[in-house]
Amino acid sequence: MKLEKVALVGSGNWGSAIAKIIGNNVQLYPEFDNEVKMWVYEEFINGQKLTDIINEKNENVKYLPGIKLSSNIKAVPDLLETVRDATILVFVIPHQFVKGVCNQLKGQILPHAKAISLIKGFDVNETGICPMTEVIAKTLNINVSSLSGANIANEIAEENFSETTIGYRVREEGELYKRLFETPYFRVGIIDDVIGVELCGALKNVVAIAAGIIDGLRLGDNAKAAIIRIGLLEMKKFVQTFYRGIKEETFFESCGIADVITTSYGGRNRRVAEAFVITRKPFEHLEKELLAGQKLQGTLTAQEINHVLRRKGLENEYKLFTTVYRIAYQGLPPERLVKEII
Amino acid sequence: MKLEKVALVGSGNWGSAIAKIIGNNVQLYPEFDNEVKMWVYEEFINGQKLTDIINEKNENVKYLPGIKLSSNIKAVPDLLETVRDATILVFVIPHQFVKGVCNQLKGQILPHAKAISLIKGFDVNETGICPMTEVIAKTLNINVSSLSGANIANEIAEENFSETTIGYRVREEGELYKRLFETPYFRVGIIDDVIGVELCGALKNVVAIAAGIIDGLRLGDNAKAAIIRIGLLEMKKFVQTFYRGIKEETFFESCGIADVITTSYGGRNRRVAEAFVITRKPFEHLEKELLAGQKLQGTLTAQEINHVLRRKGLENEYKLFTTVYRIAYQGLPPERLVKEII
Repeated sequence: MKLEKVALVGSGNWGSAIAKIIGNNVQLYPEFDNEVKMWVYEEFINGQKLTDIINEKNENVKYLPGIKLSSNIKAVPDLLETVRDATILVFVIPHQFVKGVCNQLKGQILPHAKAISLIKGFDVNETGICPMTEVIAKTLNINVSSLSGANIANEIAEENFSETTIGYRVREEGELYKRLFETPYFRVGIIDDVIGVELCGALKNVVAIAAGIIDGLRLGDNAKAAIIRIGLLEMKKFVQTFYRGIKEETFFESCGIADVITTSYGGRNRRVAEAFVITRKPFEHLEKELLAGQKLQGTLTAQEINHVLRRKGLENEYKLFTTVYRIAYQGLPPERLVKEII
Repeated sequence: MKLEKVALVGSGNWGSAIAKIIGNNVQLYPEFDNEVKMWVYEEFINGQKLTDIINEKNENVKYLPGIKLSSNIKAVPDLLETVRDATILVFVIPHQFVKGVCNQLKGQILPHAKAISLIKGFDVNETGICPMTEVIAKTLNINVSSLSGANIANEIAEENFSETTIGYRVREEGELYKRLFETPYFRVGIIDDVIGVELCGALKNVVAIAAGIIDGLRLGDNAKAAIIRIGLLEMKKFVQTFYRGIKEETFFESCGIADVITTSYGGRNRRVAEAFVITRKPFEHLEKELLAGQKLQGTLTAQEINHVLRRKGLENEYKLFTTVYRIAYQGLPPERLVKEII
């Protein structure tokens, strides 16, 4: 039997937390090759290459400090070398980079490779939104699954209990990925809904911006729960409006309700939005001040959604999404959030 | 046209917050009689009757201090006098008292009266659970609706934004109650599902106990979101197993997902359960120490559910409910919560 060989395309905070899990799991099942290459966009830390530090210390000192990776994780600065012999590509990069990376990978991967995307976010074009799994699938002509859930990276790295959801198109691949990702503390549910799982992961960040605004306004737990509920319903309606075959159950999985909750209570979008209300500094300033190089996805996603909604004349049917956009980009005072959506 | 006359059966923290809303709303719509009697179980506060204090100060100084009620709310110590001329009975008392109160009301209310229950909790008998709306409906032979939602009482009293859900059997009654309860800051959704709405309100307290345990164990936001998700699914399964005609949409209403969230983050069940993990004092002690006379519903509900589940051999299908019961009543260490449910 030919072994499955995993390559990690990405090595940020989430990518590194996942590297820890994958590095252990490939050693547990004989179907996997033990070596896992991880693509690291080269940076210099105090004059030393980040790849060298990771490979010496078995730790991503920049994006997941304090967490040991197993030694079979090999940081590689060259993208093509990372993926050359891989049968499973795990994409975990910011969604802005996906097209560029896929264009580089074209013709450079094994023809029978397959991929799973852990990316939050999507592209927008004239006809609507373009999920990252579709960008990857079309550019590389391979099967692509998705993974998304209530997954704040540091908590998983510390082995606190979490759940996640894998959306598959081919059941055997869903089951293979479950073996690759599941641990006693990281429970994987699988569902036949790649797009539903994936888009929840992107859209929830818009809800978290709204939740952070509620926190900044000190409106309390009822209001926050109401915002999360309204946001989840808009997510559901949006995904079901733009895609067929979306499962109702997806929204009861970790990628649905649980991820909206965890992101709205513990995530960085919430934190920056709360700071926005308190300081009134623009989101771009706060992103630089508070996120140490990480990207704020929620406002960007709100903008992308708004392009689609406006073009289709649907802004009024998605009041929460539209109001977050207007607060982030059009100077609408955050105090208006509740009034605009009720 | 005969005016609708409202009587409030109950005057605790939640009852008083609702009295504030109803007192205003009956003045907004010509269909309602302006006077609203509110039954107050007589107590003495520094030698003065609580009913007298409420009627003089327009404030329930014991259960909702600092919040003014409108002067058309009349505190009445006599139950039968409260309800005698009422066409709408609003039940908002601890569920332990419902049977006794209904037995007193039998034959003493207007024959065309109707009721709405804001009560969290249910009775248990040999055949299963017995919702409070059914106890009221059968004892008094009237139509009974339900109201439940993400409704921490003090936040509503302070006019922070909240949503709630009314479950009706007769649509016109649902719409009437919407007018009676809705305000710009308290948004009412109505749905044709009395039992679903009502039982969510009781069952969510068990989930909040589990969430408080997760907080006490410091397991983080992912774990808490996972517990809330698993808890909501057990609530849904429980209600749909024991009752027909339960709507899927009910769990997406404020009474479903939003109430589980707000109760698991801001409610008293969560708070006491967190203290339980930290102090290891029994729940009854903590209830007295922390709740100032209010009741802890979650552990009691867990016990009642367990009677039903055990009798039907279903304990293993409701691992979260069962584990909360075992932690609260059988000495299972709270550290075992996650291991037992995964």
